[in-house]
Amino acid sequence: MEPGTRVRIKKNNVTYEGILMPSATDNIVLKLDNGYNVGLRPENAVVEQIESYNSEIKEQPVIEEVMTGREGLPQLTILSTGGTIASRVDYRTGAVSPQFSTHDILAAIPELGEIANISGRVIYSILSENMRASYWQKLAREIYNEINNGAYGVIVTHGTDTMGYTASALSFMIRTPVPVVLVGSQRSSDRPSSDAAMNAICAARVACSDLAEVVVVMHGTTSDDFCYIHRGTKVRKMHTSARNAFQSVNSAPIGKVDYTASDVTKLSVEFMSEHAHRGDNKLELHAELEERCALVKFYPGATADIIDYLVERGNRGIVLEGTGLGHVSADWIPTLERVIRDGIPVVMTSQCLYGTVCDRVYDTGRDLIRAGVIEGMDMLPETALVKLMWVLAQTSDMDEVKRLMQTNVAGEITARRANL
Amino acid sequence: MEPGTRVRIKKNNVTYEGILMPSATDNIVLKLDNGYNVGLRPENAVVEQIESYNSEIKEQPVIEEVMTGREGLPQLTILSTGGTIASRVDYRTGAVSPQFSTHDILAAIPELGEIANISGRVIYSILSENMRASYWQKLAREIYNEINNGAYGVIVTHGTDTMGYTASALSFMIRTPVPVVLVGSQRSSDRPSSDAAMNAICAARVACSDLAEVVVVMHGTTSDDFCYIHRGTKVRKMHTSARNAFQSVNSAPIGKVDYTASDVTKLSVEFMSEHAHRGDNKLELHAELEERCALVKFYPGATADIIDYLVERGNRGIVLEGTGLGHVSADWIPTLERVIRDGIPVVMTSQCLYGTVCDRVYDTGRDLIRAGVIEGMDMLPETALVKLMWVLAQTSDMDEVKRLMQTNVAGEITARRANL
Repeated sequence: MEPGTRVRIKKNNVTYEGILMPSATDNIVLKLDNGYNVGLRPENAVVEQIESYNSEIKEQPVIEEVMTGREGLPQLTILSTGGTIASRVDYRTGAVSPQFSTHDILAAIPELGEIANISGRVIYSILSENMRASYWQKLAREIYNEINNGAYGVIVTHGTDTMGYTASALSFMIRTPVPVVLVGSQRSSDRPSSDAAMNAICAARVACSDLAEVVVVMHGTTSDDFCYIHRGTKVRKMHTSARNAFQSVNSAPIGKVDYTASDVTKLSVEFMSEHAHRGDNKLELHAELEERCALVKFYPGATADIIDYLVERGNRGIVLEGTGLGHVSADWIPTLERVIRDGIPVVMTSQCLYGTVCDRVYDTGRDLIRAGVIEGMDMLPETALVKLMWVLAQTSDMDEVKRLMQTNVAGEITARRANL
Repeated sequence: MEPGTRVRIKKNNVTYEGILMPSATDNIVLKLDNGYNVGLRPENAVVEQIESYNSEIKEQPVIEEVMTGREGLPQLTILSTGGTIASRVDYRTGAVSPQFSTHDILAAIPELGEIANISGRVIYSILSENMRASYWQKLAREIYNEINNGAYGVIVTHGTDTMGYTASALSFMIRTPVPVVLVGSQRSSDRPSSDAAMNAICAARVACSDLAEVVVVMHGTTSDDFCYIHRGTKVRKMHTSARNAFQSVNSAPIGKVDYTASDVTKLSVEFMSEHAHRGDNKLELHAELEERCALVKFYPGATADIIDYLVERGNRGIVLEGTGLGHVSADWIPTLERVIRDGIPVVMTSQCLYGTVCDRVYDTGRDLIRAGVIEGMDMLPETALVKLMWVLAQTSDMDEVKRLMQTNVAGEITARRANL
């Protein structure tokens, strides 16, 4: 059937009606009468042509009802923060804006209703580059409340730009007995090539699984075959636009969700590495953050006065993104020594991203350790930044800051020493 | 034969004498009487036991002589700048310091003499985190002079920490008719697991090949099977310690050097993508750089006053390492608009590293473009920084800066648009 044809599709006892859209995959993409697109896997779908193309928009408020109150399905919460997964193209400007409510997401991806009863709330409607520590804190409290109120799992829809930072922050702030799953999309759900539906469906599947951690669920490859489950403290957006932009760095993904089953209720979750199991943890919230922390990337010729400036501006901690095993130029060392003596912790990470910081090998590194710089082990720079915010909200004792920064709290440290 | 045994090894008409060392690979590692280690591939090597372990250090100044004046071999220059490849463990402190001269490197890797006649000079003896723009300029002039004086190829030994930055800077500064090959090592050459010998031998092989670009030659895998040839503007250190730390980002490597041949004179170079051929370019030097450029990595909560500070401190251009497709939080936009209006170009790159910047998709990006931010295409942040230094030395006209930054000069731009 040609794109533009009006069809009725029956699948797993749900009926969809709308206009067939061009699809970049073998999924059926249907523009519903409410204007949103649905991506449906073709297996078991019975497609019936109704009429040819009709641009008239009618109300069709049916779909939300499949989401709630059905017996035998677990109860999930979707908290929407904005981002592409909650966006559509603004045809006035041509840009993509976060305009969807949580209900809109449910309406756009009705197959979520086959996996769970889902209630949802909008926490923010922002592009994730506008996230900040105080927003992470409110989000953490909302997640805590949902779990406290009995949610079997929580899904957070989030812009991909800073999803890694938020996942990391939530990992430190919430000790969770159930899955907390962040998910986003690289293409808005009103585009035929959108990854929103598959990611959200896999996220819902993980939110029902035997997991008790904060994770990110996103495409594992550029195909639509599986999603990876990434640990919140180890995941990073490693591509500006690809579906499989998110990668676990310095650890294997926790697991994957096979998306090739013909029925979304039968998607299998395969765990690939150790993880906390449902109920292992007692629910705890530690949402305090010292927002006044800075991340500084070193580059040849960078001068250390930037450190003095950041401290003068009130920053209470600094994470450096050094070169190689964790270096900055030798002429930075007196400045670092001075601010550390004044009670500002400085944590060294590497702009290599992969591998472990080790300042015991080269002269510069040994001088940095003597100056009191804290080796950030194999923590991502972004994770070290949010962890430092979290640690400084608990203590300003320099020894205790160092001890906590070098103690694994939420899977953020997986190797204590570089393999040299 | 056991490590510690004193042996004489004949290979390809060269005789080595020393103590067998433990080896992590199937290479033979020999500690020469001058204290340096040599890694030898076992093929065609005839090993003869002389005596058991002897710790006495004798002078053995023989090896340099194989390096020069032999007919039928091309003439290469090694310029040493320091780094691990020129380092050894300081047994007083336990740290690794750059203490080797170029002759020491030749002595430690005598097989280089089987590939070419090699002359060498020490330009710097520094750890590469101490590199800066003025050092790149002097190095560029030295390379220019060597090529002008007839070098068939130039090898630059360099610390790995900032080798990507230097390779990128040299790519803009020198238009070369012959190979300019940067090489380093992740383990100092007096360690049994050193990658120095293989990297240097492959670099020498590339320096004799049909190439006319600035490239980095380093291990392709964690095994000792091949080295990759990376374009100078596209390469980045992506691991703190692994042998295969260097990776081409947003482009395939230019080629590879097979290291499995039994004879170093028969190592084959396989080109994998388009490249400039020997003699394609006329030698040119454009070594002017505006050093006063800064690289700023954005993170959630980062405030735009850092931009004002950097401009007040005299910076003439700013490269941002934004999130995703190239974003910073919306509240940065007025500041960026103001500094751009004041004649400070701002170039957007992505902390994703992979993929292309595109600010035409989301509201924030479109506002950034309206503010005058220059999209950095698929340039690495580090490459965009050194390119901006190079461009600002030529022009301060904002339109011309933009045009040059978005024009491919040395392979730094390979995709003009994100595949969205």
